Amino acid sequence: MSGGNLTAVIAGQGALAPAVLAALADQGESPVVAALQGFAPGPGITEFRLERLVPFMDSLLDQGVDKVTFAGAVRRPHLDPELFDSRTASLVPRILSAIQSGDDAALRVLIAIFEEWGLKVIGTADVAPDLVPAEGHLVGGPNGHDREDARRAVEIVRGLGALDLGQGAVVAQGLCLAVETLPGTNAMLDFVAAHKALRPNPRGARGVLYKAPKPGQDRRIDLPAIGVETVNAAVRAGLAGIAWEAGGCVLLDRTETEAAAREGGLFLWSRGA
Amino acid sequence: MSGGNLTAVIAGQGALAPAVLAALADQGESPVVAALQGFAPGPGITEFRLERLVPFMDSLLDQGVDKVTFAGAVRRPHLDPELFDSRTASLVPRILSAIQSGDDAALRVLIAIFEEWGLKVIGTADVAPDLVPAEGHLVGGPNGHDREDARRAVEIVRGLGALDLGQGAVVAQGLCLAVETLPGTNAMLDFVAAHKALRPNPRGARGVLYKAPKPGQDRRIDLPAIGVETVNAAVRAGLAGIAWEAGGCVLLDRTETEAAAREGGLFLWSRGA
Repeated sequence: MSGGNLTAVIAGQGALAPAVLAALADQGESPVVAALQGFAPGPGITEFRLERLVPFMDSLLDQGVDKVTFAGAVRRPHLDPELFDSRTASLVPRILSAIQSGDDAALRVLIAIFEEWGLKVIGTADVAPDLVPAEGHLVGGPNGHDREDARRAVEIVRGLGALDLGQGAVVAQGLCLAVETLPGTNAMLDFVAAHKALRPNPRGARGVLYKAPKPGQDRRIDLPAIGVETVNAAVRAGLAGIAWEAGGCVLLDRTETEAAAREGGLFLWSRGA
Repeated sequence: MSGGNLTAVIAGQGALAPAVLAALADQGESPVVAALQGFAPGPGITEFRLERLVPFMDSLLDQGVDKVTFAGAVRRPHLDPELFDSRTASLVPRILSAIQSGDDAALRVLIAIFEEWGLKVIGTADVAPDLVPAEGHLVGGPNGHDREDARRAVEIVRGLGALDLGQGAVVAQGLCLAVETLPGTNAMLDFVAAHKALRPNPRGARGVLYKAPKPGQDRRIDLPAIGVETVNAAVRAGLAGIAWEAGGCVLLDRTETEAAAREGGLFLWSRGA
């Protein structure tokens, strides 16, 4: 080990990795960037395979890395038994049982392995605090009905988390219009847009999208994200605004996202517990 | 009271009321048919208003009715304060607090009031047992993967019920593709059809629609229903089959629905607990 103080960004797909890299660059940091093979967000990024995790961790230490952050989506990789090196092979039982227990469990095991190797795993909020808004009204603000709808959505998302389901729901006039599942937030909002007319009172509260991490989720991985596309899809769905658990969601492209919300007449509310 | 033994069918919207009436006709019974004003499934049906519930119940007793069954969907009615008769007015506190507590609570209170008046409330399974299939494979049968998907869906639907959400979910390859919300089963299946490609393994299990009453739901009201349209929507969604809680779901137009399933290559499985 070289005892450095560099950060490594494990980049996944989506907009989070570029946002984290931009924030680090703003802070004058030059992180090591790597991606699981098949999930690199762009060209020119060092790739590693899970079957060679131990040599990869050693190479990070050799480069002076002492902290690792995960940025972006990774799906379960397929494993090729022939590619395991002997040291990583000793971790196979843990890796396999983790992968079989679902994405959250798999990431928890990965975090534990990194930390055992002396690589501290830190979250987006630690690396790039501006990406994870604290409590407050960023654009506009909810009225009393919107607050009621948000409260009901909080309850639903909490309950869904216990079922290991998604991290989002849409509630209008106290009624749950949609729940986030595998196809994701924008698919859910398109569904709401297609069924707008079902709100019992056409002139009543327009509804709230609420997003939050799962209860008990490790905040160092896979936070729900909100961005310009989310705002535009929420406008098409006719919602009053977007709320999320303060400190538990990533706000991407903040300037553009806030501008889109203002233009679409949506509130953006980082809601405290 | 006249101490009769007639059945009254409180008909709501949808296909259940005609199915129950047809089943009663087959059994040689001539029920009294009535509908809440604004929710009659067709013309020529006696309508009553909630504001005049007591005179309505008295008229049922006068006609020799001793049993009532609810058949079909009713949404929360608006109440006109001027229309209450004095005896129904005494029930207003119970009716209002019930309506404010949600649909299930409202129906439970309505059942309690009917029974206090000497009108026994019975379920679809009692009136027309053929409409509520017992355990068994009606068309085809699930394979091992489908059984796994059904098991996960049972768990999800049970958890959703605890949140007072819908009565259905779609699971494929262990992953929840959709959850039923206000727009209903067919909207959920259309959503799955639009996101077919998201199943991780394109040649893996195609997925199962599962429907069940909410845990603790009174089986005398508002059972989930499956019919030809459900089957056709499930075929478009690319599913392997439809499963439901045996004894807890209505199967409409059984002959046509089974034929549609056979033609579409779907199993229909009335699943025991």
